[in-house]
Amino acid sequence: MSSALAVNYAAVAAAAERLRGVAHHTPVLTSAQADAISGARVFFKCENFQRVGAFKFRGAYNAISCLSEEQRRRGVVAFSSGNHAQGMALAARMLGVPVAIVMPSDAPAMKLAATREYGAEVILYDRATGDREAIAARLGAERGLAVIPAYDHADVIAGQGTAAKELFDSVGPLDYLFVCTGGGGLLSGSAIAAAHLAPDCVVIGVEPEAGNDAQRSLRSGQIVHIAVPDTIADGAQTQHIGKLVLPILQAHVRDIVTVSDDQLRRQIRFFAERMKIVVEGAGALAAAAVMNRLVDVAGKRVGVIVSGGNIDMALFAECMARGAAEV
Amino acid sequence: MSSALAVNYAAVAAAAERLRGVAHHTPVLTSAQADAISGARVFFKCENFQRVGAFKFRGAYNAISCLSEEQRRRGVVAFSSGNHAQGMALAARMLGVPVAIVMPSDAPAMKLAATREYGAEVILYDRATGDREAIAARLGAERGLAVIPAYDHADVIAGQGTAAKELFDSVGPLDYLFVCTGGGGLLSGSAIAAAHLAPDCVVIGVEPEAGNDAQRSLRSGQIVHIAVPDTIADGAQTQHIGKLVLPILQAHVRDIVTVSDDQLRRQIRFFAERMKIVVEGAGALAAAAVMNRLVDVAGKRVGVIVSGGNIDMALFAECMARGAAEV
Repeated sequence: MSSALAVNYAAVAAAAERLRGVAHHTPVLTSAQADAISGARVFFKCENFQRVGAFKFRGAYNAISCLSEEQRRRGVVAFSSGNHAQGMALAARMLGVPVAIVMPSDAPAMKLAATREYGAEVILYDRATGDREAIAARLGAERGLAVIPAYDHADVIAGQGTAAKELFDSVGPLDYLFVCTGGGGLLSGSAIAAAHLAPDCVVIGVEPEAGNDAQRSLRSGQIVHIAVPDTIADGAQTQHIGKLVLPILQAHVRDIVTVSDDQLRRQIRFFAERMKIVVEGAGALAAAAVMNRLVDVAGKRVGVIVSGGNIDMALFAECMARGAAEV
Repeated sequence: MSSALAVNYAAVAAAAERLRGVAHHTPVLTSAQADAISGARVFFKCENFQRVGAFKFRGAYNAISCLSEEQRRRGVVAFSSGNHAQGMALAARMLGVPVAIVMPSDAPAMKLAATREYGAEVILYDRATGDREAIAARLGAERGLAVIPAYDHADVIAGQGTAAKELFDSVGPLDYLFVCTGGGGLLSGSAIAAAHLAPDCVVIGVEPEAGNDAQRSLRSGQIVHIAVPDTIADGAQTQHIGKLVLPILQAHVRDIVTVSDDQLRRQIRFFAERMKIVVEGAGALAAAAVMNRLVDVAGKRVGVIVSGGNIDMALFAECMARGAAEV
């Protein structure tokens, strides 16, 4: 079945070569308390320390690197109000490639400013009336720009898989690997890496309880579309997984479990208080599944991808305060 | 002059051997934004990821390890309501050594619980009427326990110096090294390591503006005693530096600069928002000196020790919220 998949391990390994010395080789942290709570030996791969604060830089840089010289001269376009926007903007600047990012006009001023700071052209659209995907496609056609979507793209998926590759390279075989999922780029790339580097490793996806479309898609074998889920895991507020993603999940992911926002808030606080790291909602998904023992991992060696740290500071402060009241 | 100092580099190197595989080899983080703000190339040695959340574990473990077997059988005693207490408690447990910690009866319940969780016997005293140093000394005499003070002890200083040693070993020579100081254990140990591993490196101590006793002591050549300083850097609320510390500072530290609590709050927020790490007040001292350009480090390679991450979550949330209002 693997031969039919959009991405193979060779593509992940090639992406890792392209990212060498360019992406941060992020640290792997451990915590005696996390081990005690989960009953497992847990290795946290900290992509919150990645450039732009999230794993997204990996896929963006790899995808732009794979374009022809001619295409890189013309430029690229992406639509995102989140980490993919900043990943694309930084990667394009590093590679000297013109980049346009389609963002909603009501996006937080700080995010617009950050994207522009990286040198990207920001194209605003009205969220109520516009279709960002169509706008990006039209820009692509008019200006000859390559559209780089956030997850449903082979080179993006291969790039995201390099985080898991680094984790296995650092700590050796694992019994389980937990990875958050929105559109499924990180999960599918991680699963490709795991299947090759640790064939016995069970890969589990984790998504917000408020929007379990990936879980339903994997279980039904068909891509399920949902309304924008109401969750603090804004990095996982996707409405459906990618077309290239589903076959990879079917081949290499055992199951997808869900986590509540309350569990995320507690996990964010645990990360800050006990492990001294700042993690965003989506970044806490995989860890929350392990720490709440949603899967029996007692005595096992468990990898957890901490996908990003770009949390709104007001929400972050709220998680700290809420936790304080509970104790 | 070096020959007269209480600690030499061989003692730091021996401590590093004892700590190998026992203490965490903490990561060194860099930040393009920190470089832009400071004008330098900054390497952050993250001791907030150390066991018990601060560098103190290093000195405690080294000091207990250096005791005779007979003394280790009898046990140790320390007085501290901060990171040294937990460092001693954990190190003693790992080495199978009985430990008593003298703590004020009004210490936060969480800190008392954490110290007991590590297996330490907690001896409470009344802060208004008791003298913790005298209580520890009496306990030491009565039970034959070795008193391990928080900083004025050669084996403690040597242990603390291993963090700077790891930093130099990781990133090579530096032009400047900034280190926070309370009693001066970390600063003096770091200075010993720097003098050997990077003789041209200028070592700068950093302390809270509210209590500049170390600065005055270094400049006057005499240990200055002050009232407990009012600062959010509770890890640096010492009233004087150590007797063994001063000669080392005189030999190897260029100057000591001071940082305000406002600068610390902004630095704590920068660490959280931009670098995704949780840092306590004292842990932010050295970085705040660099980011506020208190010393001209333009174009230089600069090491910063981030000493710990054990910040009260309410204070931490307040730093986040205050920053949000400012932006």
